[in-house]
Amino acid sequence: MAESRKLRMGMVGGGPGAFIGPVHRIAAEMDGKIQMVAGAFSQSAERSRAAGERFGIDAARAYADYRQMIEVEGKRPDPIDFIVIVTPNHLHLPIALAALDAGIPVMSDKPATATYEEALALEAAVAKSGLPYGLTHTYAGYAMVREARAMCAAGRLGKIRKVAVEYLQGWMSKPIETTGQKQAAWRADPAQNGLGGSIGDIGTHAFHLLEYISGLQVTAINATLRSVVEGRRLDDDCNAFVRLTNGAAGALACSQVAAGELNELRIRIYGEAGSIDWRQQDPNRLIVRWLDGPEEIRHAAAPYLSPDALAVGRTPAGHPEGYLEAFAVLYREFADALVAWQQGNKNPLPATLPGIVAGVRGMRFIERAIESSRKESWVEF
Amino acid sequence: MAESRKLRMGMVGGGPGAFIGPVHRIAAEMDGKIQMVAGAFSQSAERSRAAGERFGIDAARAYADYRQMIEVEGKRPDPIDFIVIVTPNHLHLPIALAALDAGIPVMSDKPATATYEEALALEAAVAKSGLPYGLTHTYAGYAMVREARAMCAAGRLGKIRKVAVEYLQGWMSKPIETTGQKQAAWRADPAQNGLGGSIGDIGTHAFHLLEYISGLQVTAINATLRSVVEGRRLDDDCNAFVRLTNGAAGALACSQVAAGELNELRIRIYGEAGSIDWRQQDPNRLIVRWLDGPEEIRHAAAPYLSPDALAVGRTPAGHPEGYLEAFAVLYREFADALVAWQQGNKNPLPATLPGIVAGVRGMRFIERAIESSRKESWVEF
Amino acid sequence: MAESRKLRMGMVGGGPGAFIGPVHRIAAEMDGKIQMVAGAFSQSAERSRAAGERFGIDAARAYADYRQMIEVEGKRPDPIDFIVIVTPNHLHLPIALAALDAGIPVMSDKPATATYEEALALEAAVAKSGLPYGLTHTYAGYAMVREARAMCAAGRLGKIRKVAVEYLQGWMSKPIETTGQKQAAWRADPAQNGLGGSIGDIGTHAFHLLEYISGLQVTAINATLRSVVEGRRLDDDCNAFVRLTNGAAGALACSQVAAGELNELRIRIYGEAGSIDWRQQDPNRLIVRWLDGPEEIRHAAAPYLSPDALAVGRTPAGHPEGYLEAFAVLYREFADALVAWQQGNKNPLPATLPGIVAGVRGMRFIERAIESSRKESWVEF
Amino acid sequence: MAESRKLRMGMVGGGPGAFIGPVHRIAAEMDGKIQMVAGAFSQSAERSRAAGERFGIDAARAYADYRQMIEVEGKRPDPIDFIVIVTPNHLHLPIALAALDAGIPVMSDKPATATYEEALALEAAVAKSGLPYGLTHTYAGYAMVREARAMCAAGRLGKIRKVAVEYLQGWMSKPIETTGQKQAAWRADPAQNGLGGSIGDIGTHAFHLLEYISGLQVTAINATLRSVVEGRRLDDDCNAFVRLTNGAAGALACSQVAAGELNELRIRIYGEAGSIDWRQQDPNRLIVRWLDGPEEIRHAAAPYLSPDALAVGRTPAGHPEGYLEAFAVLYREFADALVAWQQGNKNPLPATLPGIVAGVRGMRFIERAIESSRKESWVEF
Repeated sequence: MAESRKLRMGMVGGGPGAFIGPVHRIAAEMDGKIQMVAGAFSQSAERSRAAGERFGIDAARAYADYRQMIEVEGKRPDPIDFIVIVTPNHLHLPIALAALDAGIPVMSDKPATATYEEALALEAAVAKSGLPYGLTHTYAGYAMVREARAMCAAGRLGKIRKVAVEYLQGWMSKPIETTGQKQAAWRADPAQNGLGGSIGDIGTHAFHLLEYISGLQVTAINATLRSVVEGRRLDDDCNAFVRLTNGAAGALACSQVAAGELNELRIRIYGEAGSIDWRQQDPNRLIVRWLDGPEEIRHAAAPYLSPDALAVGRTPAGHPEGYLEAFAVLYREFADALVAWQQGNKNPLPATLPGIVAGVRGMRFIERAIESSRKESWVEF
Repeated sequence: MAESRKLRMGMVGGGPGAFIGPVHRIAAEMDGKIQMVAGAFSQSAERSRAAGERFGIDAARAYADYRQMIEVEGKRPDPIDFIVIVTPNHLHLPIALAALDAGIPVMSDKPATATYEEALALEAAVAKSGLPYGLTHTYAGYAMVREARAMCAAGRLGKIRKVAVEYLQGWMSKPIETTGQKQAAWRADPAQNGLGGSIGDIGTHAFHLLEYISGLQVTAINATLRSVVEGRRLDDDCNAFVRLTNGAAGALACSQVAAGELNELRIRIYGEAGSIDWRQQDPNRLIVRWLDGPEEIRHAAAPYLSPDALAVGRTPAGHPEGYLEAFAVLYREFADALVAWQQGNKNPLPATLPGIVAGVRGMRFIERAIESSRKESWVEF
Repeated sequence: MAESRKLRMGMVGGGPGAFIGPVHRIAAEMDGKIQMVAGAFSQSAERSRAAGERFGIDAARAYADYRQMIEVEGKRPDPIDFIVIVTPNHLHLPIALAALDAGIPVMSDKPATATYEEALALEAAVAKSGLPYGLTHTYAGYAMVREARAMCAAGRLGKIRKVAVEYLQGWMSKPIETTGQKQAAWRADPAQNGLGGSIGDIGTHAFHLLEYISGLQVTAINATLRSVVEGRRLDDDCNAFVRLTNGAAGALACSQVAAGELNELRIRIYGEAGSIDWRQQDPNRLIVRWLDGPEEIRHAAAPYLSPDALAVGRTPAGHPEGYLEAFAVLYREFADALVAWQQGNKNPLPATLPGIVAGVRGMRFIERAIESSRKESWVEF
Repeated sequence: MAESRKLRMGMVGGGPGAFIGPVHRIAAEMDGKIQMVAGAFSQSAERSRAAGERFGIDAARAYADYRQMIEVEGKRPDPIDFIVIVTPNHLHLPIALAALDAGIPVMSDKPATATYEEALALEAAVAKSGLPYGLTHTYAGYAMVREARAMCAAGRLGKIRKVAVEYLQGWMSKPIETTGQKQAAWRADPAQNGLGGSIGDIGTHAFHLLEYISGLQVTAINATLRSVVEGRRLDDDCNAFVRLTNGAAGALACSQVAAGELNELRIRIYGEAGSIDWRQQDPNRLIVRWLDGPEEIRHAAAPYLSPDALAVGRTPAGHPEGYLEAFAVLYREFADALVAWQQGNKNPLPATLPGIVAGVRGMRFIERAIESSRKESWVEF
């Protein structure tokens, strides 16, 4: 049966030293629907081959260039079904455009592009192509994020009044980009990372989660970006106020110089009737605090959860799922959508899977935050 | 021995229905250094007498008016040694002035006064009188707040870069001030509470804690105050950015409409070497997150704490102290200072005990926050 | 009004170096119903006087001997209303008997006596005297213990099937009794502490809490006591199984050599419908885990609590109460009962206040645990 | 390169309705070293084929019988490299023997067999075959379990004195085995599950973790097994004391009727210098409580961890790994060992990977616990 074959994935980026390449590979393959069969892992042919070998990829399908991969794969009887882009940010757009141009669906690491203008261009290209495009805002894949989203959508909290989202890390507390730390080096380089530093790297996750869970949109922002570490060219710390479509307001913070924090992504949403509180480092629990009753802790995979939350888990309650499982949820949804698309469905992407719209929002967020910080005032979205 | 007698306290406010009167009584008397012997608990003679009886006060010393208490007590052989002011905010100044004028030291609930101008007037009066004046910023009495303060003072965190302090409650999520809830009623009334709502009631605690622990001062603020509940005349929610003397920056939030929160006062301070994290609802622990080592949890009364932290506890490690004990620490420090003052020490107040300087800072904070919110921009302190 | 005067307390024990004397003084006086006016704080006249002075006691009422205190106070116009016993355990019985013999009600630190036989003798004496006798099983005073007890009594958990209670400390991990640590020295001495070490000192608290909350009684025990630290004469570690009246079973553990633990008293009770989980080091929260719904956290002073839990608090939800407040709840209940007794009520003690029955149970527990450990088998109660 | 090809796995069991089959598939394939290519998923040919299709297995390799699988695969040019056994317990032995007999290495779900005698037989067969045999005691694959083990091995806690391990679930609180719940049905059936109920199903995990982390062995046990739910034929609740090789002692508890608990596996080990505390439901943190210093929280993937702990992770600190990742660690270690074995290494299994020795210990534990409970006394191992 053709339907039950695994989808073939080709990766761009993710070569030696990259953290995110292996993560995408594991996540893509976890649910048995996708197999990574090709890759342009590095711009060095040798390094790309080495990466391919480590990934167990046929040597002939480890390319030194994404254009080459697109071209050669296109001529195979078993070509890749889609590409995933895991390069530094400045390459996201050209790679995505090349794939779309060749009729190849795209899964992309975030942010979608390096600038807001690029995001608009990509949005147009996606629309024109009619091809599936997914964006791995990983945290959207956690079961309890889905539960939080379902609760907001169902009005369980009453009218939302206040939000607070923060994403704090400490790993760039020292100028490690100057000492050969590869992850830090490209993130601190405007040419590779785009105009935003922490705001783009992690602030976009916080922003996405806020809109994804609340169902509201940010309409204005007042942000203060700082480069705390001396000599750093991009922001490494940000505090922002936001206003939301329904009149609610809130705060968004991100930092990569919050010494001692590992990966503290937390979101709280306050409604008239109660509030929710979720932390990525404790992802299988959702705290719900009611105005008129005891605090509640909802656990992943428990039978009382919403269908949306129950749909994405793999293990029974009490058996923790983590970052890779959340990531894999997005790939599973993308895979199912891709099969549907191959079978003729023109709009196969589910609302739960972040796509180009989220990508454009995220780039708009970065651009508006930087503008606001420059002006030291509120700016509209 | 005259030295070992208990100090005599007279209370103004705290009559029937008040929450904070009994709290002050317990806190004042906890360490065996103070006894409440008189009070003008209510402006109704009958209610004051009823309160006095409940407190076990001699009926002759339950006054209907603070001026009367000051006058009558002054003629007794065993007069009150000091007064404590626990009325709604708008009465703080006149009562304090009357006491100082009569040569009576003052302990006051916060905020010091109803407006910044009043605070300046009070500061001048205190200076002129040479009398001890203490301000019950309760949270400054917790052992682990003292530990945090000592760590900052000793430079354990390295240079401070970032702060985040929040004080979230949910109890005013509905317009309860319109339904006879006394605590809410006066807090929602500008005439009694001053210009600030949540910013004055709890924001000042957050602000005080920030400066108290970090040892830094706020130099500028950008605040957004909202009245979320329809019809409410004072703010019930605030988000603010702050800048600090050493160039650090941060965020301060307070809310009384954060549905589901009880009394979530939390402060995090990030330095170059690590960070501290303290929550009032879990007060006997201080979390320390190091940039280069495991996370640490310091426990109240443990032998490895700083002398400042160990000085204030009463029970062994693992035997929780709470809000009343923190409150009592301030009274103990005030009592010791008062005895020293009675013995001739002109400057007896310890740096650990909040006083009129903190009071002025707090009122400045409220005034600046309101101004900033009105202007929608940064304002200098 | 005679009724509103404070009750007068005389303390036996609690002199210099004692931890628990000041704790009792604070707890007794916290709610304004009791004042400590006399004491036989030490068997050294000088040390007793010094303690009295530090407590602010009239020098004439700081006695060197409890018999003297009983005699002299009995002749005063304002004699003590009751005594509190805070000596090492072996003195509990003679002091209590002397007081009862003189018609003086007794509040006693636990355990009630040094042996089970003594407890039976005391029980008889209390019965014969008709005098109020209270036992400060401190943890029974926490609001959330009252909530747990009320939930069990109301059948909220369904039939109870399983219990687990533990009380773990680490402070005796080294042979500190040989190096002058006074608290450890008497606890490690059978002549002063009775036959049980950790089982008597803290195991009894665990045992009491189990019966107090569950409403069930232990019917059999299988205990293993150990003296882990070389040379220690009394047990410092115990694991036990227990069977309960309704057929339920469980585990009880205590240790004073659990290195790193501070004061980890925790109880879990499992019923057919759900379970409760309470930790003394996080006392203002009660975790309730339902078989068929989300986990719940109940907070002290929240309006949804049982009347029993709400009756004992002093501060609003989110303002932590601690060990001293729990202690003070027992004194408040004792004070109210004492006033009622003085007014003619023959059975004034409320069921919530531990008394001689709990004292006998506790001594029976120690005796049975030791017997079981000696036999290495189950023994009936 | 032959070395870089994926190892081929054949599964026995794991058909429709099974929870653990898909878990093994994901875990086995996660690190890119193994691919499931065949299976005898069910004893029904149709159901096996359906399972194979869902797993994306070639229809020809979905067998209805494990014997058939062994025979047919043995004739293929690309035969399975090993089998994994995920059937109910009573089938573990015959399947393992058949595989070993055919020269096929075995990975087995735990327990190794249905009885202790079977385990001894299997141990002999494994020894005779010289084939790699691995046992998926999942929890041994968590990074922080490795850290705890490394700390014990390095003597960081000093001499171990006391252990406490518990594994509590509530999902069998009702007699669900009588209402068609498949997972419960076979577990409650002695013919399929062996003599132990909860003691075998989860108690063995607790027992394994205790020996695995502490490096000590249990020498005696005193266990009380109960069937709390009326009519249940196997135990659903157990409390046990244990003695360990170095003279330490402790407690082990397991339950499947602890209503409200999800999967509460927790282990605490107390040494002279401090203690460790790990909970499976919060698996990326290891709490270390020192006798003489602050409590510590060690985080998975943090640079200060032991090499053993760092070796097994895939994601940066703060990106949670969960149950599937822990499971996959065992498969990765098994795969590496298998490759080494295929290359001639006779003893390729690392000490960190549970194998037949752990399997025999586990079955001995079950047998001894049941014997102890029957006798109501201690029994030696």
